[in-house]
Amino acid sequence: MVFFDLGSSIDTGKKKEIEESYDVVIIGGGPAGMTAGVYSARGGLKTLIIEKASEGGQVVLTEEVENYPGFLKITGNDLSQRFSKQARHFGCDIISAEVRNVDVCCDNKFVILDDEKKIKTNVIIIATGASHKKLGVPGETRLNGRGVSYCAICDGAFFRDRHVAVIGGGNSAIEEALYLSQMVSKVTVVHRRDKLRADKIIQDRAFANPKIEFVWDSVISEIEGGNRVSSLSVENLKTGIKSKLDVDGVFIYIGLKPQTDLFKNMIQLTHEGFIIVDKDTLETSIPGIFAAGDVIEKEIRQIVNAAADGAIASSMAIKKYF
Amino acid sequence: MVFFDLGSSIDTGKKKEIEESYDVVIIGGGPAGMTAGVYSARGGLKTLIIEKASEGGQVVLTEEVENYPGFLKITGNDLSQRFSKQARHFGCDIISAEVRNVDVCCDNKFVILDDEKKIKTNVIIIATGASHKKLGVPGETRLNGRGVSYCAICDGAFFRDRHVAVIGGGNSAIEEALYLSQMVSKVTVVHRRDKLRADKIIQDRAFANPKIEFVWDSVISEIEGGNRVSSLSVENLKTGIKSKLDVDGVFIYIGLKPQTDLFKNMIQLTHEGFIIVDKDTLETSIPGIFAAGDVIEKEIRQIVNAAADGAIASSMAIKKYF
Repeated sequence: MVFFDLGSSIDTGKKKEIEESYDVVIIGGGPAGMTAGVYSARGGLKTLIIEKASEGGQVVLTEEVENYPGFLKITGNDLSQRFSKQARHFGCDIISAEVRNVDVCCDNKFVILDDEKKIKTNVIIIATGASHKKLGVPGETRLNGRGVSYCAICDGAFFRDRHVAVIGGGNSAIEEALYLSQMVSKVTVVHRRDKLRADKIIQDRAFANPKIEFVWDSVISEIEGGNRVSSLSVENLKTGIKSKLDVDGVFIYIGLKPQTDLFKNMIQLTHEGFIIVDKDTLETSIPGIFAAGDVIEKEIRQIVNAAADGAIASSMAIKKYF
Repeated sequence: MVFFDLGSSIDTGKKKEIEESYDVVIIGGGPAGMTAGVYSARGGLKTLIIEKASEGGQVVLTEEVENYPGFLKITGNDLSQRFSKQARHFGCDIISAEVRNVDVCCDNKFVILDDEKKIKTNVIIIATGASHKKLGVPGETRLNGRGVSYCAICDGAFFRDRHVAVIGGGNSAIEEALYLSQMVSKVTVVHRRDKLRADKIIQDRAFANPKIEFVWDSVISEIEGGNRVSSLSVENLKTGIKSKLDVDGVFIYIGLKPQTDLFKNMIQLTHEGFIIVDKDTLETSIPGIFAAGDVIEKEIRQIVNAAADGAIASSMAIKKYF
C-alpha cells in the first residue's frame, strides 16, 4: 500500500449544487457506499453519496489488490475510480463534505453538513468504514504497502515462504498469525505483555503451531528498510534491552476503529463501536437507517464483502420503504 | 440474457489429473465457487473446484451485467471467465465433473465423482447455486435476456418507463412488482389464482400502488416478439378467454430451485431446499462443510453477494480448520 494524491478526485464546491431532499443519502464513498449508490440509483431512487476525505475510502490507499473478484491485479485507486464512475453513471450525486449531524424526527430524516446545509431523506445508509490503529513509529507510514500491512487475508499471499511479524495479542492478532502460518515460513508475534488477550482456544492453537514464535513484553520502536521492510527495532519493556528482528513484513493488529462517533447515542453499537445490524437486511436499530461495509459488526472485512453489503442495504431499503 | 456456447470452456478429461486429497473441495464453479477458490488458494490451501455443466454458473447465461461493482458493462460470460482465470492463477485445480455423493465419516470427508473417483478433503464448500423455475411456454427461452427476465434487481433498470408483466403471486413476485414500480411506467401482475399467496403487508402495498394492476385466474400460454418481447398470450382459466397483453418485458417469479438434492438427508435445509448457514461464518449444520452463493437461505441473490459469500466461506474455513 502507498499513498496517492487524492486531490484531483474531490468535487470541490459541488456542495451547493445538491438538492434539498433525496430518497437515499449514503454516508461514505468507499466500496460499500458506491455499490449502495449503484443499487439505489438503478433501483429508481434519487441518491446522494457524501464522502468526507476523498472518494473511494480506505481502498484508495491500497497499492495492489489481487483478490477482488474480476481483477487479477488492480490498484486500489483504479478500483475505487471504477466504483465511483459506476455510481455516477446511474445518476448518483456525489459530494465531498463532512456530515455534522444526523437528525431523526417523526418519520423524517435529516443529514446536516458542516456548512449547515440540511438534506431531507427517507433512508440513510451508513458506510463510513473503519480504520486500523497505527503504531505511530518511524517507518510505519513510509513502508505501508512495502512490507507493512494491516490485513493478513489481503496481503498474506505476498509473503509466501517469508518471515513476518505480527504485532498485538488480541483475537485478531493471533487469528491472523494462524492464518499467515499457512503460507509464510515463520511468524513472530510481538506483544507488549507477558500473556495474550486472545481466547484460550485460539491461544492453544497458536502455541501448538511450530511456525509461530513469541516475543513477550516488547514493543516496536521503529520499522526499518530501504524500499521494503527488512527489520524491526524491538524494545523489551521489562529489561529495556533493544534488539533487531529481521523480517520481510509486519502485520499490525492493535485495533480497528469504526467511524461511528456521529451515531454513538443514536444507533445500537458494539462496545468497540461497530454498528449492529440485522444480518439479512443490514438495517440498524433505527428503522430506515441501514449500514454497510467495514463499519458493521462482522467477521470478514474485504472489498468484495463491503460492496456486497452495499447491494443488500440498498435493495432491502427499496423493498421495505419505497 | 442469451445463451452462449459453453463447450470451449470445459476442461474435458482433466478429471484423471486431479489429486487424491485436497484441503478444500468446492462444489460449483459460479461466482461463489470461484471466489471461494481465490480466497482458499491465496490462503495457502490445496484447492479443487468441481463444476458440473460448465465453468461460471448461471452468470454465464447473462448477456449484460451492469451492476457488478467495477464494470460499467460486461457480459456474464466475460465476467465468469475472469473469475475462473483468477482462481486458476492462484493454483486452484478446476475440473468438469458431476458429484455423485458426499461422504462424511469420522472427521474425514470424501467427495465421490460420477466416475467413482473418491477425493479426500478437510473442508467442503457447497456453491451449487439455484435456478429459476421456467414457465415452459413458447418464446420463453428464445426471448430470455430480450425482455424475459427472472431478476428485477438485475434487469429492472433496463425497463425504465416501460410496461412490464410479473408472473406469480407469492412474496417474491409481489416484492419484485413493487421494486419494478419504482422505475417502470406500469406493472401488470398475472396470477393463476384469484388471490395472492404473498404476505398481507406486501399485498396491501401492492394493491395501494397506482402503477400495479392485476390479471387474475390467468396463465401465460406464449411469450411473443421478434427480436424482443412485445406481448403475452394470456388465458383466463375460469372463462377460457384468451387475450393479448402488450408489454416490453416479463419477469417470471414462479419459484427458485436450489441445487441441493445431494445434501437432502445430510445438511439442514429450509423447506424450499435452501441451505441454512451460520450467517457470520457460512458454515452449515455439519462442521467443516460451508455453503456460499445462491444456494443458501438469504434475501439478496446478486453476483457480488455470491462472490462475497465465497470470500467469507474460505476465510472462515481457514481460520477455523487450518
